[in-house]
Amino acid sequence: MTKTNPGRFFEDYTVGQTIRHAVPRTVAEGERALYHALYPARHALYSSDEFAITCGLDGSPLDDLLAFHTVFGKTVPDVSLNAVANLGYAQGRWLRPVWPGDTLRAESQVIGLRQNSNGQSGVVWVRTQGLNQVDEVVLDYVRWVMVRKRDPQSPAPEAVVPDLADSVDAADLIVPEGLSFAEYDFDLAGEPHRWGDYAVGEVIDHVDAVTIEEAEHMLATRLWQNTAKVHFDATHRPDGRRLIYGGHVISLARALSFNGLANAQMIVALNAGAHANPCFAGDTVRAWSQVLDRAPTDAPGVGAIRLRLVATRNGAPAGTLRDDQGKYLPDVLLDLDYWALMPV
Amino acid sequence: MTKTNPGRFFEDYTVGQTIRHAVPRTVAEGERALYHALYPARHALYSSDEFAITCGLDGSPLDDLLAFHTVFGKTVPDVSLNAVANLGYAQGRWLRPVWPGDTLRAESQVIGLRQNSNGQSGVVWVRTQGLNQVDEVVLDYVRWVMVRKRDPQSPAPEAVVPDLADSVDAADLIVPEGLSFAEYDFDLAGEPHRWGDYAVGEVIDHVDAVTIEEAEHMLATRLWQNTAKVHFDATHRPDGRRLIYGGHVISLARALSFNGLANAQMIVALNAGAHANPCFAGDTVRAWSQVLDRAPTDAPGVGAIRLRLVATRNGAPAGTLRDDQGKYLPDVLLDLDYWALMPV
Amino acid sequence: MTKTNPGRFFEDYTVGQTIRHAVPRTVAEGERALYHALYPARHALYSSDEFAITCGLDGSPLDDLLAFHTVFGKTVPDVSLNAVANLGYAQGRWLRPVWPGDTLRAESQVIGLRQNSNGQSGVVWVRTQGLNQVDEVVLDYVRWVMVRKRDPQSPAPEAVVPDLADSVDAADLIVPEGLSFAEYDFDLAGEPHRWGDYAVGEVIDHVDAVTIEEAEHMLATRLWQNTAKVHFDATHRPDGRRLIYGGHVISLARALSFNGLANAQMIVALNAGAHANPCFAGDTVRAWSQVLDRAPTDAPGVGAIRLRLVATRNGAPAGTLRDDQGKYLPDVLLDLDYWALMPV
Repeated sequence: MTKTNPGRFFEDYTVGQTIRHAVPRTVAEGERALYHALYPARHALYSSDEFAITCGLDGSPLDDLLAFHTVFGKTVPDVSLNAVANLGYAQGRWLRPVWPGDTLRAESQVIGLRQNSNGQSGVVWVRTQGLNQVDEVVLDYVRWVMVRKRDPQSPAPEAVVPDLADSVDAADLIVPEGLSFAEYDFDLAGEPHRWGDYAVGEVIDHVDAVTIEEAEHMLATRLWQNTAKVHFDATHRPDGRRLIYGGHVISLARALSFNGLANAQMIVALNAGAHANPCFAGDTVRAWSQVLDRAPTDAPGVGAIRLRLVATRNGAPAGTLRDDQGKYLPDVLLDLDYWALMPV
Repeated sequence: MTKTNPGRFFEDYTVGQTIRHAVPRTVAEGERALYHALYPARHALYSSDEFAITCGLDGSPLDDLLAFHTVFGKTVPDVSLNAVANLGYAQGRWLRPVWPGDTLRAESQVIGLRQNSNGQSGVVWVRTQGLNQVDEVVLDYVRWVMVRKRDPQSPAPEAVVPDLADSVDAADLIVPEGLSFAEYDFDLAGEPHRWGDYAVGEVIDHVDAVTIEEAEHMLATRLWQNTAKVHFDATHRPDGRRLIYGGHVISLARALSFNGLANAQMIVALNAGAHANPCFAGDTVRAWSQVLDRAPTDAPGVGAIRLRLVATRNGAPAGTLRDDQGKYLPDVLLDLDYWALMPV
Repeated sequence: MTKTNPGRFFEDYTVGQTIRHAVPRTVAEGERALYHALYPARHALYSSDEFAITCGLDGSPLDDLLAFHTVFGKTVPDVSLNAVANLGYAQGRWLRPVWPGDTLRAESQVIGLRQNSNGQSGVVWVRTQGLNQVDEVVLDYVRWVMVRKRDPQSPAPEAVVPDLADSVDAADLIVPEGLSFAEYDFDLAGEPHRWGDYAVGEVIDHVDAVTIEEAEHMLATRLWQNTAKVHFDATHRPDGRRLIYGGHVISLARALSFNGLANAQMIVALNAGAHANPCFAGDTVRAWSQVLDRAPTDAPGVGAIRLRLVATRNGAPAGTLRDDQGKYLPDVLLDLDYWALMPV
């Protein structure tokens, strides 16, 4: 009997099934430093303990996306090893900051299944929770992927398609306990623009660009213990290229968005996300954002802003996403919809 | 007088001589994070403090190979700067875990010398100990290298060839104090296979592959403060290639072996090892293991398993090491023989 | 109104103006580990807590250049985003070690301005201070850059050119509190050469060489949160090359200087510095030093040594800096003049 993990096929999932993902991970100051080396991350709350303390926290948490990647990485061997495509995200919420020294693990529940009409594959919806060492949920999100069937002749399961809202309702956003932007220092944060300065519909071109190297995306993807072969093995694809983990592009775009959104400090919800086109080493990535919504919160001085974050390559212009047929333009890499917290 | 280190030549060694190697090193959570970025390391005991606590330890130790590389790196300026070849390892034992915050230093004793018949070089055997900040030995191994003579005319020393066992006797393995696999969580560890599930002779193909980049092996090798020029200087060899530190291949293969040997948690002995062929950036490395032996231990739920770990490139098939003449096949990079601890 | 940072132009500076730079940064053990992965750094005081304790400190501080790069990085968005050239450094002093866990921020005062005769640009002198979380100055230096004018027609400001000494006077060097080399262990430090063994005028060829990869300099430069586009964006220059941050070359050369100057433990002053020629990935960097001066200090066993540190590529010979016209040779990358502390 083979002892290696062949991954799960479409037939291996049933609605209601819970999967405890392997390899809990303690994340600490080393991961924080690497995050700053891998991405041009400059949001002050994640850079400075002192700044975070002024914002009512006990110190600087680990980047929200570091928590996301760590949890996501745990799910890969069980959810996406045989995935043909990563189709979408919904209803993601960050429920608690992750602190240096925390140990994260992940669990997923299968909440939907639908075989494709070709009989070769099907769509699997999972709700994943990231938990810390005292079993508090730090992150909760829905993701759906297209997974190959082991046997095209096996019968289709009853289709169950979960009803997913287009976005997290502002009223459901969780502001970390104690967070206050009442004493916020805009000089140290890097920009003067407040929550009230952003208009719904406004597009911000983040100007800066980063050319990605193979070593960089592999270091990052390994750090999240993501095992998908396509990211590491140059012999896996006929063209010899390694596909960059979509989350690497998310973190890169989010870090680039500092220039214009330096005060969009904490990510609190992931409404939706599409990896519009594959990204490869050598691509020069840029980012732009569009303001989608704004909402107040109960925390002192804290407003919520809903943003579309788009990553592009080859200098694709800010503000344009799709062609006439509604298809993503070939140089759009990422279309992400999230809520962040900002000083009002 | 030149102030730079020319390295030692064969004439500079005498049997019985003790060398205190330079530059002690404090290793901590930063080194742990980098280890996870550089290698696809997922063994749970080294990933999660909580998992390690469940196994009776105070927290997650630093990876056994991180300790090995750190100690090995210290010996390079004194032992292998003028080495023509790294010939072998024997009688290696890990005597104590290395914890974040520990400071490691190294000492070596020359235990053997034999001039080669050509008079140009000789073999030097050293027993190296890695010690922590309270002078406890954490690691002890024998290594032998072929070293150039300064002057081919200088007389040969009396040949002393140490008597080295083929492997560490199972009775001599040191199980870390407190270690227990009685409460081992196989779900979190990632695989269900117990010590008793592995048969002597069994070959496991670890499936996954990693293509190595120049930046990655140099970051790793520098982190271990290994100063051998061949790893860093593209002008050193006529072909412009940098030779990858053999230990980088050891760590890569060991990390790849997770897929099939996720429960071979701790390395406790190094029986033998050969860097069969040089490895270069661009190589896509795979690994396979063969079970060589099994032995019980006195610790609760803990068995010892002796494994051959082989790294290959170019998709060389698992299970085949040598050609008809007994020579390593050209795509075999590493042949390592070690003992690990596993839940029974 | 655009929300992104266009950088400051020459017209935006006035003599006496103080700029509080953005994004304070907590630096800790993760940054220390990355520093050792990025540069072949081996000075024992920064490698081992135990060694540093023997030298009278509470533990191993973060590398002096890590502190420098962190502070420097903060100044880039305000000082050098529109800089045409980084012209020089003067009067730099390290006033206090930076410890893991410290949070650094930076402030600069404009101390000089002189428009160039072409009217297109001007020179800006700033004195920058790096401060820790209790507002102690850890680093203080003068830097001057050539900055583009927004409008060539705008009037020139009154020229103010600060009077800068060629070097920091030995009497003004700050030895860290408690530092003592009375119990210095030369074996562990790696070389036997004392302060008294170095003669003014002596040239030391540091022998070793490192070929730089794109991923490495970008990881480093991001770690210091340096945002200058030229380092990251391969589409920024017509030739598709990314310019390596000059500070990367400084750290690389300083680390290489271990071989011959292993006991030049702490950098305490930066007298002058020129990035003589741009450095690019693929360059194989070597280093040599020249002893410029020596001075005693009041601390036990501690002497000060003034060194010229030169980085070269393409195997340019040690000891030669300039051509007949006094111009830097094309393969000289760095000419740095600093004071370090050494055991007497």
